[in-house]
Parts: sequence; structure tokens; C-alpha cells
Amino acid sequence: MTYQSGQQLNQQIDSILELLNKQEIVQTIFHRQQHTAEKNLLEAMLHKQQAAELEEQVNKLHNADIAHLLEIIPINKRFQLWQVIAADRVTEVFLDANENIQETLLSNLPEGEILKIIQFMDADDLAFITDIIPKHLMEQRLLELSQDDQLWLNHAQSYKEDSVGSLMSNDMFIVKQFEMVKDVSKRIREIKKLPDQSDKLFVVDSRGVLTGVISLEKLLLNNPKKIIKEIMSTNVVHFSANDSASHAAKAFERYDLISAPVINERGKILGRINVEVMMDYLREENTEDVLNMVGLNAEDDLFAPVISTVRSRGLWLGINLFAVFLVSRVIGLFEQTLSEMIYLAVLMPIVAAVGGNIGNQTASLVIRGLTLGQINLQNSIHLAKKEFFVNAINGLILGVVVALFSFVFYQNTALSLVIGIAMLLNLVMAAFIGLSVPLALKYLNYDPAMGSSIITTAAADSMGFLIFLGLASVFLI
Amino acid sequence: MTYQSGQQLNQQIDSILELLNKQEIVQTIFHRQQHTAEKNLLEAMLHKQQAAELEEQVNKLHNADIAHLLEIIPINKRFQLWQVIAADRVTEVFLDANENIQETLLSNLPEGEILKIIQFMDADDLAFITDIIPKHLMEQRLLELSQDDQLWLNHAQSYKEDSVGSLMSNDMFIVKQFEMVKDVSKRIREIKKLPDQSDKLFVVDSRGVLTGVISLEKLLLNNPKKIIKEIMSTNVVHFSANDSASHAAKAFERYDLISAPVINERGKILGRINVEVMMDYLREENTEDVLNMVGLNAEDDLFAPVISTVRSRGLWLGINLFAVFLVSRVIGLFEQTLSEMIYLAVLMPIVAAVGGNIGNQTASLVIRGLTLGQINLQNSIHLAKKEFFVNAINGLILGVVVALFSFVFYQNTALSLVIGIAMLLNLVMAAFIGLSVPLALKYLNYDPAMGSSIITTAAADSMGFLIFLGLASVFLI
Repeated sequence: MTYQSGQQLNQQIDSILELLNKQEIVQTIFHRQQHTAEKNLLEAMLHKQQAAELEEQVNKLHNADIAHLLEIIPINKRFQLWQVIAADRVTEVFLDANENIQETLLSNLPEGEILKIIQFMDADDLAFITDIIPKHLMEQRLLELSQDDQLWLNHAQSYKEDSVGSLMSNDMFIVKQFEMVKDVSKRIREIKKLPDQSDKLFVVDSRGVLTGVISLEKLLLNNPKKIIKEIMSTNVVHFSANDSASHAAKAFERYDLISAPVINERGKILGRINVEVMMDYLREENTEDVLNMVGLNAEDDLFAPVISTVRSRGLWLGINLFAVFLVSRVIGLFEQTLSEMIYLAVLMPIVAAVGGNIGNQTASLVIRGLTLGQINLQNSIHLAKKEFFVNAINGLILGVVVALFSFVFYQNTALSLVIGIAMLLNLVMAAFIGLSVPLALKYLNYDPAMGSSIITTAAADSMGFLIFLGLASVFLI
Repeated sequence: MTYQSGQQLNQQIDSILELLNKQEIVQTIFHRQQHTAEKNLLEAMLHKQQAAELEEQVNKLHNADIAHLLEIIPINKRFQLWQVIAADRVTEVFLDANENIQETLLSNLPEGEILKIIQFMDADDLAFITDIIPKHLMEQRLLELSQDDQLWLNHAQSYKEDSVGSLMSNDMFIVKQFEMVKDVSKRIREIKKLPDQSDKLFVVDSRGVLTGVISLEKLLLNNPKKIIKEIMSTNVVHFSANDSASHAAKAFERYDLISAPVINERGKILGRINVEVMMDYLREENTEDVLNMVGLNAEDDLFAPVISTVRSRGLWLGINLFAVFLVSRVIGLFEQTLSEMIYLAVLMPIVAAVGGNIGNQTASLVIRGLTLGQINLQNSIHLAKKEFFVNAINGLILGVVVALFSFVFYQNTALSLVIGIAMLLNLVMAAFIGLSVPLALKYLNYDPAMGSSIITTAAADSMGFLIFLGLASVFLI
């Protein structure tokens, strides 16, 4: 299980995908013909041979790579793949897979298989999946845990999603401040293994209150007879269990943390969070924006079945349609004007579409700024001023170009003036809309990206039609 | 410099922002009135008092927090803030700031100040900023480096942007495989400090070829007389200097790495990359998509001056305008039809706008899938099929709703049929466009997000108008 370079890994994955496809093809061919005992046997043999090859290929991969493979194949093939994973690896592969895969597996595998997955999980890992595991299986597993682990598990579940508490682990190594370096080293040797991603150990006083941290490096660097308190660092980044995970992730990034203690209001250590969990969180948070903007649910599986996808997209499609109906009614207000000057209908999408794009540019900037924590109340006013000037200048330039374009086709100076001015006004207006929509969503405690593209586009389109057709009906008739 | 909770930090930042504002207000008031010696003195005193307060507040913050503060304030205030940062912290704050801030500072600070920033930088950090630092200052600094460091610096610069080589550091601790644990411990104690984020040390044979890694944990766990080779791990995730940073970041995420060796084709160690650099890279890569889609440059500073912003947005605005002109010409083809049935002009944006949104949904899905490495050639065909069915079903539903909407306003059965069918066809077409645009960009070796929203919207809009007006001119006349 040594590491493969990226290219080798891709080749391996491709060959596995091919094997999976072959199996399907064999199945299809045989299903098309009439079944005889002989054919059945032949099919079984072919299958067996390929399953063996598949099994060999798959189990050469790192656990995390198998989990990734599960994510990039359609649902029906996921079970095919799952069956060939070595029994002693199913737990790790399951934990490495994303939530969609975990849910699909749990809701489709027979109980025996699920038990195999959870039978060796510790309290920590169980805490992450309690929501999605069948209740009676979970209860069965809980009985096997120690009293402490059961308590911890109950506690961990009480924190809300996206809080530090929901992401922390109870797997940590605690040091007393008056221990000597050699005592700590001895204790570490006894337990044989430190928690994953341990760069430092947490130091407490006699009441169990966090007083500092000691890095493994310091343990190696110092004389075995040194007292921990003398060499520990008291400059500790720590979190409360109710802190938002997003805040913690920013702190991990900013202060380059590998692990950090989670404490209660009296300073006692509740648990530990590490960079692995934070990196996963960051990745999710960041890639969500792209989907949320256009009204998609970030938790949706790329390979979810058609019907569940149709359903999950329904709400925002409905909102989209409603918004577009409003846009259409705005145009409807000017039916008379349009019928007198049909070229307005040809030109009006120019004003609306560029406005929609400008609105989305500004909205994207604001959403990214909010995600990175670069926008607050004070500087959003500055930002508004800046966007106003940028789009006023761009509006002037584009206004002139559009006026020329329309003059080329219609040789009507008044029309050119009207569309040029409409362009300028609409760009400034669109920037204002793009700035307001995510800030308003944020203010109302929604995700600022949520549907912002749909709302911004519809609003900027309506304004574009209103400004252009409005000016036209006043000045061109 | 102990860590502050998130709320405390925000309060501190707010009070600093207020101080910065006050200074500006004092300046403005005094500048408005006529200058007399007395007033000048008064102004200077007020300034001094506030500068002292500002200095105190700012230097209470963590280096990384000061760097963040620089990012969220307008350019003119950045210099004001820079002046009060303690002299012994400027290098660290500078290194913690993002590239925009670094460039602004380097191109505006007097040479003396720049020298203060770089005088204590090591070869590693210098490598990151060689591109943006004035050449003669860099050469001056280079002369002070050791021969080895100079060589390394030259080497590091030879790797292209976004390669592992460009992100690696030469700060590492190498262990010979036949050393004993106690030898290594002794050597560590001699150098007093390990490189940042050292979870493991790299092990080489007598020719300097990487043969394994030994974690600090193992050093602590094992008997001092053990030979490294016996306890090291040979399952090493390593990279080549020419690997893409994006590939390495995915591996860091997938295999939960803290640090990893970079080797050449013969297995010799060239450098080291760590999770800190990878997290920064991931963050940038992820937040870029949101901006790239709408034709913005992800490297743009939120607070860049108006003119440079106007210029940097110019290209894609031009492309946008050109695309919209094409859309308008598509409508122009049907001027005759429109003049006969003016209600088509009122209804046509419905078909186009919903299509544009659907196209962007699919494009967003594909872009995210590509970023996460979940989409390849094989499964993109599966994905295409799925999106076809999802949008065909949604198209049917929306088609019926739009048909009813148009019937309410125009009581024209044929018109309702035409718009319903146009809706269905355009949704399927838009999904196909949204799928093709990012995949085509990727195939052409561009960033798949680059301008994809602009291209997709324009293409889906044109198709929408073409399909609806086309059907109308055939069946309604």
C-alpha cells in the first residue's frame, strides 16, 4: 500500500472503472438471451474471474482512494465495488467517504454488512454517523461501549451542526503541569500510539483546567528531568464547543494550527479538534458557494438518482420561474410602446443581460469577501462607493459602444442616446443590486450565496427592461 | 499575545478601524481650514496621541491578525497602519499577508522600509517574493545569503507557478537510516528548533535517497538505542517538484498529511511541503471559481483602486457585450414575427432567462465536480444522461406552468403550446450547454470556471430566443 504518483493512481482508477463496466456488459448480454443452465454457469464463471481481478485492483488502493472511487461512480456500481473491499478495511473506507456515500451505503446494505462497518468504530467515529445509522443497530453497538464513551457520545450529539463541539474528538493525551518530561515520555510509550495529528499535548492543572500546551518537539528537545510547566507554551489558541466551525477553520488557517483544545467556560478540556477535520470543513464550505448561488443544494450527490435530484432542485426552480414571470410583467407594462417600436424588443435584452452579468460579478465579489471574512459593515460602504465608480465608468464606455451598435442598425440618434443612457443607469443599478442581495441574505441570517444569482439576475433584468423601455416610452414617442 | 476569542478579536479590529477613521477625519477637518502654525501644532498633537493609541492596539494582535486587518482596509489606510507595526514584527506580518497586500506595500514603501522587511528573511521566504521585490534590493539581500541558500533560491525560482516545486521549502531535518534514536534526539537538541509543522523527519540512505520517514511520535515511543531503519515507516507519500500544487493539495487532504518530501527522479530529497502552504493553496483555488465564472480575476484586490479594477474587468465585459450583441441579432432575425405578435416580446425573456439559470446550474455542478476531482471522461457521459433526464422532467413541469401563465394573459392555445414546448426544449439544451462549456474549457487547458457563466448565459439565452421565436414563426403565423 505504498503511495502512487497521481498519474499511476489515475491509471489504476481507470482500469477499475473499466472492470466495473465489463461486469455490467456481461450481465446485459446474458440477460438479453434466454437463460439455460449452461449459460448461467458461464456467466457465473466470467463474473467470478472479473470479480477476483476487481478485488485485487481495488485492494491495492489506499483507503482514501477507494472512498474517492466510490464518490465518482454511479450508485448501482457502488455496491458492486463495496462487495470486493477487504473485510478489515470497510470501516476505514466508510469513514473516509463523504456523507452522501455513507447514507447511500447505510440505507441499502443488509444489516449484517452495516454491523461489519460499525463493529470496531470508536465513540468518536460513531458520533459522526449517529444521525444516519439505523437506530436499533446503533443501540446495539452502544451497549458494547464503555460508560465513559457512552457519556461522551451523548454529549457530543448535543452540539448543533457546524459547531466546534460537533467536530471535536475525545481522543487526546492530557499532561499534568508538574509532570517531568520523562514521566510524559514513559506514559506515551505505555499507550504506544498518540491520537492522529498530535503535534502537541494539552497541559492541565490539578483541577483539570487548561494551562498550556507542550509540543512533541519540546519533549524531544528538553532534558528528561525538566518540569512540563517550565517549558510549556501558555500562548494557546483554544475554542469553545459552541464556536462556529467556520470561525475555527479560519483560525486554523490563520494561525497555522495542527490541533487545538476545546474547553468549557471554566477552562476544562472538553475535546480536541485537528487540521484534518478543519480542512474537510473548509473544502465543503468553499465549494458550496458555487452551487448555492445558482440555487443548488451543496449536499446533493453528483450521482444521486434522477427523481431525488428533480425534487431537490424544485424549490429554487419555482422561485426562478416566479421571478421571471415578474420580469415578463415588467415588459408587459410597455406592450403599447413595443408595438410602436418593434426594434426596442430586439435591443432590450442587451441592457438587461449585461446588467445581469454585472450584478452577478458584484454579488460574487461580496460572497467571496464574506467567506474570507474580508467584508464588514465599515468597509462595505467603501466597497459600495468603489463599485459605484467602477460601474459608472464601465457603464459610460459600454453605453457609448451600445449606442454605436444600435446606430449602425437603426440610424436613430434619439434611440442611440436612450439605450446608451439606459446602459449606464442599469450598470450602476445592477452593481447596487449585486451588492445588496448577499448582504441582505447575510443580515437575515441566510447563507449569503443562497440563490443570490437567481435573485440578482431577475432583479437586474427587471430594472434593465424598466429603465430602457421607460426611457424609450418617455423620449421616443 | 495570547489568543483572543473570535468576538474579542472582532471588537479589537473594530476599535482599530475606528481609530483609523478618526485620524482621517482629523486630517480632513484641518485641511479644510486655513493652515496656521498653531493649528498645525494642534493637528500634530492630536495625531500623535491617536497614533500612539493605534500602535498599542495594533501590536496587541497576532501577526496573522494584523495581516488580515491590512486586507480589509482601503489602500490609503494600509500605509497608516503599516507605520505603527513594531519593527521586529514587520517581516512576519508581511509574510502572513496575501499577495495583493505584499505588492501594494512593495510598490509604495520607501526603500528603507522594504529593506527592513527583507533583512531577516530566509532563503525560503525570499523565494516566495522574488517576483514582486525591486530587483536591486533583492540582489543586495542575496549577497548576504550563504552559497547554499543562493543556489537553492535560484533552483526554487526555476519551477513554474502552481507546481509543487514553487511551494516547497528547504527547511527540513534529514535523518540517516542507520542512526540510532538517541543520535537523532541529540542532533535535534543541538539545533534547538525543528522546521514549522514537523510531524515527521525524512530518512535517507548513504546516497541521500529517500527510504522512509520517522514521526516525532515514533522517536518518543521507541527505545533510544533502536536503529531508525527498523522503526521508520516506508509507506511514504511523496511528490515530484513538477507535480501540480492542486494534485498535491488533494493528496494532503485525502491522506491527512502534515508534511511530505519532494524528491527528484532519482529519489533524492529536494525539499519539503507542509499543510500550511497546502491549506492556503486550497483556499485560493476554491474561492477562485466563484469569481472566475463571472469573468472576474481571482487575484484582484477587493480594495484595488477604481481605475485598475476598471481595466482588469475590461476583457470579459467586452466578451460579454459581444455575446449579448449576438443574442440581440438572433432576436433581430424575427423582427417581422415580433411585429405581428407583440406578446412574443413580452414572453420571450421567460424562456431565455430560465434557460440561462439552468445552464448555470449545470455548469456550476460540473465546475465543482472538476475541482473536487469527481468528474472524468467515463462518468461525464453518465452525468450528461442524468442531467438530460432531470431537465427533461423539469422542462415538462415548467413547460406546463408557463403554458398556463401565458394562457391566463393571452387566451391563445397555440401560443401556450408553443411556449410550453419551447420551454422543454430550451431546458434540455441549456443543460447540455452548461455541461459542455466547462468541459470544453478544461479540454482546451483553460480554467473550467473561466467566464463560464458569461458564455453559458449568452449561449442559453440565444438558444432560448431562437427556439421560442422559431417555433412561433412556424406555427403561429
